[in-house]
Amino acid sequence: MRDPLLKNHSGLFTDYYELAMAQAYYLQGKGGDKAVFDYFFRKNPFNGGYVLFSGINELLEILENLGFSQDDLDYLSSLGFRKEFLDYLSTFTFQATIKAPREGEPVFPLEPVVTLKGNIIELQLIETLVLNILNFSSLISTKASRIRSALGNRLFSDFGLRRAQGTGGVIASRAAVVGGADSTSNVISGYLYDIPVGGTMAHSWVQTFEDELVAFRKFAEIYPQNTVLLVDTYDTLNSGIPNAIKVAREMEENGQKMKGIRLDSGDLAYLSKKARKMLDDAGLHYIKIMVSNQLDEYVIRSLNLQHAPVDGFGIGTKLITGMKSAAVDGVYKLSYFQDKPRMKVSDNIEKTTLPGEKRTVRYLNDDGTFYGDGILLDEEESTSEIIHPHFNRKRSTVVGFQSEDIITTVMKDGKRLSEKISVKQSAQYAKERLAQLPLEHHRIEYPHHYKVGISNKLAELRDHLIEKINHKEES
Amino acid sequence: MRDPLLKNHSGLFTDYYELAMAQAYYLQGKGGDKAVFDYFFRKNPFNGGYVLFSGINELLEILENLGFSQDDLDYLSSLGFRKEFLDYLSTFTFQATIKAPREGEPVFPLEPVVTLKGNIIELQLIETLVLNILNFSSLISTKASRIRSALGNRLFSDFGLRRAQGTGGVIASRAAVVGGADSTSNVISGYLYDIPVGGTMAHSWVQTFEDELVAFRKFAEIYPQNTVLLVDTYDTLNSGIPNAIKVAREMEENGQKMKGIRLDSGDLAYLSKKARKMLDDAGLHYIKIMVSNQLDEYVIRSLNLQHAPVDGFGIGTKLITGMKSAAVDGVYKLSYFQDKPRMKVSDNIEKTTLPGEKRTVRYLNDDGTFYGDGILLDEEESTSEIIHPHFNRKRSTVVGFQSEDIITTVMKDGKRLSEKISVKQSAQYAKERLAQLPLEHHRIEYPHHYKVGISNKLAELRDHLIEKINHKEES
Repeated sequence: MRDPLLKNHSGLFTDYYELAMAQAYYLQGKGGDKAVFDYFFRKNPFNGGYVLFSGINELLEILENLGFSQDDLDYLSSLGFRKEFLDYLSTFTFQATIKAPREGEPVFPLEPVVTLKGNIIELQLIETLVLNILNFSSLISTKASRIRSALGNRLFSDFGLRRAQGTGGVIASRAAVVGGADSTSNVISGYLYDIPVGGTMAHSWVQTFEDELVAFRKFAEIYPQNTVLLVDTYDTLNSGIPNAIKVAREMEENGQKMKGIRLDSGDLAYLSKKARKMLDDAGLHYIKIMVSNQLDEYVIRSLNLQHAPVDGFGIGTKLITGMKSAAVDGVYKLSYFQDKPRMKVSDNIEKTTLPGEKRTVRYLNDDGTFYGDGILLDEEESTSEIIHPHFNRKRSTVVGFQSEDIITTVMKDGKRLSEKISVKQSAQYAKERLAQLPLEHHRIEYPHHYKVGISNKLAELRDHLIEKINHKEES
Repeated sequence: MRDPLLKNHSGLFTDYYELAMAQAYYLQGKGGDKAVFDYFFRKNPFNGGYVLFSGINELLEILENLGFSQDDLDYLSSLGFRKEFLDYLSTFTFQATIKAPREGEPVFPLEPVVTLKGNIIELQLIETLVLNILNFSSLISTKASRIRSALGNRLFSDFGLRRAQGTGGVIASRAAVVGGADSTSNVISGYLYDIPVGGTMAHSWVQTFEDELVAFRKFAEIYPQNTVLLVDTYDTLNSGIPNAIKVAREMEENGQKMKGIRLDSGDLAYLSKKARKMLDDAGLHYIKIMVSNQLDEYVIRSLNLQHAPVDGFGIGTKLITGMKSAAVDGVYKLSYFQDKPRMKVSDNIEKTTLPGEKRTVRYLNDDGTFYGDGILLDEEESTSEIIHPHFNRKRSTVVGFQSEDIITTVMKDGKRLSEKISVKQSAQYAKERLAQLPLEHHRIEYPHHYKVGISNKLAELRDHLIEKINHKEES
């Protein structure tokens, strides 16, 4: 098998400064020093209520194979990196330990989502890779889950590859299925990730025939099991649908059933109602109506409000690029180094980080739904209350709640602990976990804010460190 | 050398329906029939005045090597594709002829940007690939050119890989340099495309030391030629800048000069002014101020209006994802098949296509700036006037204007005609051509609409075909 697009495994998939810092650590003899980094984000994309975490399986697979080829090293040498550091890189393998949620877990702002423990060089070198993969995959899974939530159980297929951001489309179609898409038009993602692929026809098919009716008939002859006709090449109501009805009747004579029609332009609410009526009047109740063209969760909500009789949705640009957010703002911050907790104190309060090795605990209501998350120091067994990260007075008791650790060890000393997890398994997990998230957090606009707090011990550590830093500046 | 990320060359990088249609053409014996497709877009991204065309060189390289491996074919077989079609694909090579502008050409809505002539199967199979690469690369080059236009000659580096849409970041950093970025932080793009790479330091570097001053000093020791210090880890004005000034003086004692400082949070206008004054008061006029953090052309314009003394910009998320547009809406439409012009007539007037083999001609003002573009039938030598594509009464004479063909043959029968073009050459061409585009089309909001019209002959052909189609529906 050829190298899949994402598995080039080159250590060069990084920012220059990661290599510059790594070399500087190496030259100072600090390369082996132990560090802990946290991956987290500060704000939900789409002004939504959560992030659906994904991409971890791809990330681990790349990390397990990460390295520098001779070509990579020659290139770095041409940039001025020193021979002794390049010798070190020539035998580099990733040996760190990673804790993370399962793919498909809903996660929330400020909580450590992934924690990584290893030597400072390896953890610095992979920063860009970790951010790139987790930020993007989670963005698309989150978007897909919002769309899924808007359309209930109706068919939802990713049609985005042509508008995707380059080869990013390959991982994006996978992430869309994790988040709730039933299938994708993207064949290479189907191949790489074993996800269902499908599609209908383009306008060009119809245009290559002298006549729309003949074009439909020929397609139905070749694909009688999967006849979905695109009816808007010339005139939807006066030509496309009448011709589709003719072909459907011809198929019935052969004992076949046409699967559907697709609308790709015009007012989809108006046209879908007209189309449904024309099909029903012809006794063709079983023919499904698919729509496409600039759809997203907002358009779907509008179609729902208008009771548009749509059975399936092909969703492209806005799904596959995560419009209008385009990125999860995930960051990767040092929280521990050489046996000491570390933090960044910023002029923006929101950019101040949480120090120390930490764990994220989820508290459950009696009915199994999520109540809120707590961020504890790793050494803490439990906490009795969780405190708002910025407003000290805002506290909630968590005594008596059932709790679970949402991040567990997924890679130990560079080796993955779990079996390969399929996209299907991740999609199923996402579905179950999203069902545990109360509905008000799913709302596509102005969702209820999910409770995330820190333990007393973590608050004390943070406040103590800030005082120490302020004191040092004054002295 | 390992396969670069983009050069997997698998024919599976496509939508399912392309393969379904290709198989249907094949089974009907229409596979060899000649077709012409046009790549064009309907709307400029960012509500801007133009698209900076890019990605064609990458596209041609992939097309020249496109094929189906045995694994690809086995996968397609598992999807139900028929043996006779798979046999055909097993020896598939791309043999078509492509006309396109040079990378870096400003292009405009509705005009044919790329035209492709070959057999219907090969042209259908590559639709998704053409759209994916040209849409995305052009999006990012256009965004970069808008940012470049806002910041004049100041330093502009792409910092986006961590927020890029997966491996799409690899082609995006290249496209950013075509559009006007001086360099990138993205090492793998530097390696693959021979573009300048660079970077500074992260907060983690500062945090791994007990003391910010020591962290700065150590970095300056190792990188005295390239010392750019990140000054906002603890407190920009009370700690970061004073410590940077101390280190700059120590460097002066060793005959060295600190290159710059970087601000990555807080109010960049306020902090850059304070920083400039502190540096100048210390006699360190040569130290440059770099900024980063959620920048785009709008923030830069605001910084300009406030006379923020910024020398260099590191621009990430909004550049590399093309926020807030996220996609160029390029499409790929059949315009000719089996010796006959073809068109799509849509319920949306804007979605009606232009039939026939066409060329795009640019008319120049006396001073060499662009006046407007004309879309002619390929067979036409010239036209005397150009007509608005939707409003028949809006016409402009182009008699006496100098003109040039902006699209020329770049691939003939599957073989590239030109030498490999470097990113540097494309960036230089973009710069020259953007200078020929009158300033009012560069405006980042409410730009002047660039004139694009069709010839009388093309208008006649289109109107004749619409009449014929309408007539057929009525009959």
